Amino acid sequence: MSAPRRARRTIDVGVDLGGTKIQVAAMRGEKIIGTARVLTPQSGDAGDVVRAIGEMVAQALSQADASLSSVRAVGVGSPGEIDHSTGAVINAVNVPGFGEHFELGGELSKQLEGVRVVVDNDVSVGVLGEFRRGAGRPYKDVLGVWLGTGVGGGLILGGELRSGRGSAGEFGHIVAKPGGRKCGCGNRGCVEAYAGRLSMERRVLSLVARGHKTSLLEIQKERGRDRISSGVYARALKQGDHLATVLIDEAARAVGIGMASAQNLVDFEAIILGGGLGDRLGEHFAHQVKHHMHHHLFAKGKPPALLGTELGDLGGAVGAALVTRG
Amino acid sequence: MSAPRRARRTIDVGVDLGGTKIQVAAMRGEKIIGTARVLTPQSGDAGDVVRAIGEMVAQALSQADASLSSVRAVGVGSPGEIDHSTGAVINAVNVPGFGEHFELGGELSKQLEGVRVVVDNDVSVGVLGEFRRGAGRPYKDVLGVWLGTGVGGGLILGGELRSGRGSAGEFGHIVAKPGGRKCGCGNRGCVEAYAGRLSMERRVLSLVARGHKTSLLEIQKERGRDRISSGVYARALKQGDHLATVLIDEAARAVGIGMASAQNLVDFEAIILGGGLGDRLGEHFAHQVKHHMHHHLFAKGKPPALLGTELGDLGGAVGAALVTRG
Repeated sequence: MSAPRRARRTIDVGVDLGGTKIQVAAMRGEKIIGTARVLTPQSGDAGDVVRAIGEMVAQALSQADASLSSVRAVGVGSPGEIDHSTGAVINAVNVPGFGEHFELGGELSKQLEGVRVVVDNDVSVGVLGEFRRGAGRPYKDVLGVWLGTGVGGGLILGGELRSGRGSAGEFGHIVAKPGGRKCGCGNRGCVEAYAGRLSMERRVLSLVARGHKTSLLEIQKERGRDRISSGVYARALKQGDHLATVLIDEAARAVGIGMASAQNLVDFEAIILGGGLGDRLGEHFAHQVKHHMHHHLFAKGKPPALLGTELGDLGGAVGAALVTRG
Repeated sequence: MSAPRRARRTIDVGVDLGGTKIQVAAMRGEKIIGTARVLTPQSGDAGDVVRAIGEMVAQALSQADASLSSVRAVGVGSPGEIDHSTGAVINAVNVPGFGEHFELGGELSKQLEGVRVVVDNDVSVGVLGEFRRGAGRPYKDVLGVWLGTGVGGGLILGGELRSGRGSAGEFGHIVAKPGGRKCGCGNRGCVEAYAGRLSMERRVLSLVARGHKTSLLEIQKERGRDRISSGVYARALKQGDHLATVLIDEAARAVGIGMASAQNLVDFEAIILGGGLGDRLGEHFAHQVKHHMHHHLFAKGKPPALLGTELGDLGGAVGAALVTRG
């Protein structure tokens, strides 16, 4: 009589946890075999978020006629600082109920029948996804620049994600203008102070309060958005809104300067521009960024390839699945 | 009867070739067994420079009662761009007779009875020397910032010198002030435009021409120097010269901003400040740089160690000897 068969664990699941949505992808080897997506619970506690993740994992698995017993590990890309040793998330202010400190890894593992959970930074896993399975595939040395609520970055050097002593990749805090605009980090003149959604929104509100005209807030209202999203900027730019045009050019300039400084120091083969603004504003914005970068490049004859993302909204979840493989 | 004994080649020789001097160090294993130094010939052709190098190599070897027959390889740190495949040097404008292109590796090897010659960038070998045998020994991830005629840099990541596609380490061309002072590279606002000796000298002359007062040019004359060297700045600062004080503070600010941008992106364990200005201006200058860097650091609680060089003038020659070991 043969021993009872144990299910082979061949599936990795990736979870992209954001302040707005939870995106899940289930992968077997290099293949995406199921996806699921839901809005992040905007009220309630961290337990509600963990349950929502659990439901989406189950839903993605069911698309592949699979269950948790076939899952090798679950990777999560989360905002906030990550304690890699415990899977805890610190200061993920955009996720309801996470507060200053939440044991995401441990709590999610309990929710998922003890499956191993690996937690990493949302931008790092997004860049890793694009590097391994998206636009970065042909290269070994890649810089990922992610324009979202803040401006994040990820360094791939020699094919490996660099974490340094835990603080590598803070592209958003390269100095774009010494003594310039105040950044959320407390310093002045960081790239993020010009190109992060939150910082740009503060700038819009302050200019409007001082009497500047713009269609940004109307478009935001029409679209029923609680923030000035990349889609709102895209619409305003189409209408020729002056303030939006100036803000987006300032953002492109800061990002371009940051890219040039990074390139002159590290000499990447390629730079991937991702995140909401990066993905949505498209070719024209990428050209503006490229123009400003070129202006400050040292080796102008050997610029890095400047690429958009290929995986788009799925990149974070795919990268999160890959991060479980170490 | 035994076969004739062949000399064992156990010595590596390093040559630091500069526009001003040629410094040589002979090493057996980790030990410096001989050194020699001469002013770089200021007239004549490239052959005179090659012969001067040859004489200094012989002189350093004679200190150890050795000869070329015991030399495994000779490494040279040279200004200019390096063609690593041939050992040719391109645009080393400060070395007499080198012109646009000079086959330094091949010509020096002929001069040295066919000994293998490896040529690399002067700043890269200087940083490598400090990393392997000087201030950088305890670390794996180190940024070297070299303040000389220009501002050079070297990245050590995971214990290896990073060259990228040949253009990594251009710390001097990180953007310190967008739209700022014109740099020798043609761009504006680079760190080098504020902290490179040549650029600072141009600034002094232009300010003096516009009527600004300074003791810098007198001190230079007294000392019989053909340029405003780091020693001249040091003396002027001691005398409280206003223009020198402003220029050096601008240099410290640009270097500090560049270091902060580099640190926020890469998260080094340590940064070594070397080169003429770095070595000669000492503690006070290092404190100014540190102050400006801290101002723009993202992870302020985890700054890199900011170190001076340990090998001083010998660093380049030691690094050049080590570079032959691959």
